[in-house]
Amino acid sequence: MLQRIGVLTSGGDSPGMNACIRAVVRKAVYHGLEVMGIKRGFNGFIEGDMVPLHLGSVADIIHRGGTILHTARSVQFLNPEGRARANENVKRFGIQGLVVIGGDGSFRGASIFNREYGLPVVGVPGTIDNDIPGTDQTIGFDTAVNTAVEAINKIRDTATSHERTFVIEVMGRNFGFIALAAGLAGGAETILIPERPFSYDEICERLMRGYRRGKLHSIIVVAEGAAGGLEVARKIKERTGFDTKVTILGHLQRGGTPTAADRILASCLGAKAVELLMAGETRKMVGIKAGKVVALDIEDALSQTRSIDLDMYSLAGILSI
Amino acid sequence: MLQRIGVLTSGGDSPGMNACIRAVVRKAVYHGLEVMGIKRGFNGFIEGDMVPLHLGSVADIIHRGGTILHTARSVQFLNPEGRARANENVKRFGIQGLVVIGGDGSFRGASIFNREYGLPVVGVPGTIDNDIPGTDQTIGFDTAVNTAVEAINKIRDTATSHERTFVIEVMGRNFGFIALAAGLAGGAETILIPERPFSYDEICERLMRGYRRGKLHSIIVVAEGAAGGLEVARKIKERTGFDTKVTILGHLQRGGTPTAADRILASCLGAKAVELLMAGETRKMVGIKAGKVVALDIEDALSQTRSIDLDMYSLAGILSI
Amino acid sequence: MLQRIGVLTSGGDSPGMNACIRAVVRKAVYHGLEVMGIKRGFNGFIEGDMVPLHLGSVADIIHRGGTILHTARSVQFLNPEGRARANENVKRFGIQGLVVIGGDGSFRGASIFNREYGLPVVGVPGTIDNDIPGTDQTIGFDTAVNTAVEAINKIRDTATSHERTFVIEVMGRNFGFIALAAGLAGGAETILIPERPFSYDEICERLMRGYRRGKLHSIIVVAEGAAGGLEVARKIKERTGFDTKVTILGHLQRGGTPTAADRILASCLGAKAVELLMAGETRKMVGIKAGKVVALDIEDALSQTRSIDLDMYSLAGILSI
Amino acid sequence: MLQRIGVLTSGGDSPGMNACIRAVVRKAVYHGLEVMGIKRGFNGFIEGDMVPLHLGSVADIIHRGGTILHTARSVQFLNPEGRARANENVKRFGIQGLVVIGGDGSFRGASIFNREYGLPVVGVPGTIDNDIPGTDQTIGFDTAVNTAVEAINKIRDTATSHERTFVIEVMGRNFGFIALAAGLAGGAETILIPERPFSYDEICERLMRGYRRGKLHSIIVVAEGAAGGLEVARKIKERTGFDTKVTILGHLQRGGTPTAADRILASCLGAKAVELLMAGETRKMVGIKAGKVVALDIEDALSQTRSIDLDMYSLAGILSI
Repeated sequence: MLQRIGVLTSGGDSPGMNACIRAVVRKAVYHGLEVMGIKRGFNGFIEGDMVPLHLGSVADIIHRGGTILHTARSVQFLNPEGRARANENVKRFGIQGLVVIGGDGSFRGASIFNREYGLPVVGVPGTIDNDIPGTDQTIGFDTAVNTAVEAINKIRDTATSHERTFVIEVMGRNFGFIALAAGLAGGAETILIPERPFSYDEICERLMRGYRRGKLHSIIVVAEGAAGGLEVARKIKERTGFDTKVTILGHLQRGGTPTAADRILASCLGAKAVELLMAGETRKMVGIKAGKVVALDIEDALSQTRSIDLDMYSLAGILSI
Repeated sequence: MLQRIGVLTSGGDSPGMNACIRAVVRKAVYHGLEVMGIKRGFNGFIEGDMVPLHLGSVADIIHRGGTILHTARSVQFLNPEGRARANENVKRFGIQGLVVIGGDGSFRGASIFNREYGLPVVGVPGTIDNDIPGTDQTIGFDTAVNTAVEAINKIRDTATSHERTFVIEVMGRNFGFIALAAGLAGGAETILIPERPFSYDEICERLMRGYRRGKLHSIIVVAEGAAGGLEVARKIKERTGFDTKVTILGHLQRGGTPTAADRILASCLGAKAVELLMAGETRKMVGIKAGKVVALDIEDALSQTRSIDLDMYSLAGILSI
Repeated sequence: MLQRIGVLTSGGDSPGMNACIRAVVRKAVYHGLEVMGIKRGFNGFIEGDMVPLHLGSVADIIHRGGTILHTARSVQFLNPEGRARANENVKRFGIQGLVVIGGDGSFRGASIFNREYGLPVVGVPGTIDNDIPGTDQTIGFDTAVNTAVEAINKIRDTATSHERTFVIEVMGRNFGFIALAAGLAGGAETILIPERPFSYDEICERLMRGYRRGKLHSIIVVAEGAAGGLEVARKIKERTGFDTKVTILGHLQRGGTPTAADRILASCLGAKAVELLMAGETRKMVGIKAGKVVALDIEDALSQTRSIDLDMYSLAGILSI
Repeated sequence: MLQRIGVLTSGGDSPGMNACIRAVVRKAVYHGLEVMGIKRGFNGFIEGDMVPLHLGSVADIIHRGGTILHTARSVQFLNPEGRARANENVKRFGIQGLVVIGGDGSFRGASIFNREYGLPVVGVPGTIDNDIPGTDQTIGFDTAVNTAVEAINKIRDTATSHERTFVIEVMGRNFGFIALAAGLAGGAETILIPERPFSYDEICERLMRGYRRGKLHSIIVVAEGAAGGLEVARKIKERTGFDTKVTILGHLQRGGTPTAADRILASCLGAKAVELLMAGETRKMVGIKAGKVVALDIEDALSQTRSIDLDMYSLAGILSI
């Protein structure tokens, strides 16, 4: 009979992680479970750095960015010794199930740990990058996109006023989810994503075509994995002579009050994770698919490939003519 | 061969209508069509108040609340004479298809007009209420929910500081979509929706239970269709003696810069509406179902019943213990 | 030699009170003092409800609305018995000076208490209403004005789209500071303040004049002390027949993250209050005058009359033609 | 008798420039004047690129960032030939007075032009940098500071969650106004400004002191004129080993909806500029000093030195212990 579970946040922080921690704790307490909050991701797991979380521990956090449990990327947990130490704490603290809020790397670690030591684990996808297979959306993505769109709005004021070309670099090493969503919503004239090859000739031609029609300013949103913002600006300047500036959004995208959608997603997924542990499930991740909360085997989910909607990419091109 | 279409916004305005108009115009122009923007909903249709919209007419509007075409609830279009006059304008202006951005009432009017005069019509669901069958989400809903959540955040500051109970009345005559989403995301202690009966005894008992545990403030979100905010506050004050205040959000929920999600939804649905007209379809509405853009017969769609997710309602109750 | 001071927030909460508490605590600790945080205004003073505040107690609060010390309007402190009980706590807790963050009523109470029992007191003007003589600006006013302006922006979207007249009621019982600043910054067509008589004839004539020039929507900002929003709307509707709606901002104006200006003002005034107590001053209030932090005798300050800038009022009329 | 004036925006754009243009136009029209809007700063003046502005031309712009007149830094106007061509346009368009919204360089250019050709000129200080002598605050500064503070808030979420040190570079080549205000309001642990020498030893010692007390994250705000953000981060990392990240706010600070304070300042200063021209004044700049709108001789004003409030700088250090 399940009595005590642990919860941790791992990898890059994302807005909505706190709403998720709150959901895990309150759902668990509602069903009579105890919850231990593990600090700094798997590091706290290894070091036994954890505290009991009560109803009141998660009051007034639903709207806060970041994570009250802190987070880290744990190198030690990649090693068998690290995991062995973690297992000592599992026994010492009487942890009978673990909710891991983070990205695919964290899920893999949790999965290995389960195979080695048998602790039931459930992953909740929390990352701004939206790059986790098995879910249509990750916790934090909606907020990050809105933050990027606000930045585009601000920069457009200056781009228009000075008749300049602006390159805005957003996050996304392997995927262009943020770039596409923010570029489409922000009305960016050009969007560069890792999934789709581009040429500077094409970009500059598009700029020149706009210029000849009287469009004297332009916003180019580029995912960091497609090209560096500085490089894009330099190339454009060289070829067109346009006054071209760069803004790299960087960590601004990680923070801030989560949007309503992220808080709701975080609440639903956090609660579902607890339900799965209570039902005796393990090595599952929760996600949202076609509008429904779902549970998948971590390994199955992560073996899927995540792909961007290229029709939407084409649409963005048509609408920003 | 389709050459010229019209677009209008009808009913209450919602954030994202402009993003949708932009998508209709740019998608249409991309395919070589001409677009007439019809003013003040069906009123402008009846009065022949319409202007050509070009690529530049919809520049710099994607982020603006309201609708550049203005909107109205047309009484005249309910009458055969009104529709007959509208048909005169269809001929006069050479309109061969019509995109109606608005609510179910507007779709019904458009559908009747099609049956009478044959003009192909496609509806795009634009309303903050999220109350249109045939789509999981309407344009403007996400923004309205975020606006309501921001309001809850602000009021919670005062509720906490003064140890008060606050009743926040949000829109939703027949459905509690805004109330549920905003209440869940805002961490409201109690949510009252039309879909679920409630008793003041139950509400007050919940408040008293919280009070005994030391919770000296409380937020109650009420959909206008469930009960009047003023009445709820009065009843609570009478029964508990708690200092209880009311805020009626009203029209604040309609305005504001649309969120990224609303701009993207508006862009996708607006483009799809044009595609449908180009494909010779009529009496269709577009929507988003299970994450996909879909097209349904207006009459089929509107005969469905829209229902709220009562599991989510229960979850909100559990998480705000 | 001063060793321990108390700090409390009193009256209506205002954004920036937490930034002020933080400044009082950190400035005091920097100079080797101890600080007691008194709960719920003078009520906690009377009941001995107070806690020591350290550097860490005020970490991460500069950006939060409301007040971590909670606030109340204390009826008991108006009575000699209440103040006598408070004095017991002064002795019991060893309080040697008191910072009162609140409005003029709170300052008067503190001043009386000083005359009766000798405890040095310094007032810091914290209220959104900006209605305290002796300072050009109060903590919270700038935030409240920005909140009201955002509301005007949102409502203008709907006003324009529906060609409606909107009446927005803002706070201000005796003064029109919020109404004037928000109306001028929001581009309101008409502003009604208690300081300046108005007639419905004049308002309606202005509306009609705009209407004849093609201005089909209009925003009227009214301070609650000038007239009730509902009444204004009813009168306008009766006389002009215009579709007129009302929004009462109410408590929305009190909450929210404080603006940069409010945080800076709160920090400077809070620190100054501690300096005054350290210098042996009493019955002073701090304020900002002509851009400088100043200290005035509470009674002198409160005997001054606060007046609104009627030139600015005229300017608002000219600019919103 | 004055009949027609021109208005232009020059130098870097700043939020509130549109509110100022609106005030110039409406105030002038109110007094029966005509207004020509000159495009792209002095470039449009030289090229004769100007359009009449009416009441309606400036409707619905008070809340928009950027400038509807566009702006530029004009190299040509530095040359006598450029100014001679501008004078041709003065005659051709019948301009009898000029309002220049921009920075000190723009005022100098206007002043020289007046000495050469006699056209009355009045400068209005519009720049986010707050670096113009003769005024306590420039149009756009308040908005830029609030933007920077919001960025600090977002980054603090990640700094706290990951226990990192963050360096945030803000604008300010010669002055630390934005850095100081944003750093104080954002609760930054360290602020680096050009006006005050610093050593990396001092910074790192402060960081280490915090670290030993348990403060595992830290925000350092640096004005671009004090040091490069990248360099600061590198030095800190070298000396302390702390995980240190950088965010360069850059052009994000220029854009966005102006705050209420910036709109009010812009409105008052724009109106005053028109009054001065009507009164036959020339080579004046308007400003706000000790809370009052003032007019100064451009050359007198610019010969003053602008200095930052070092007491406020010290206070920021005390409050962020």
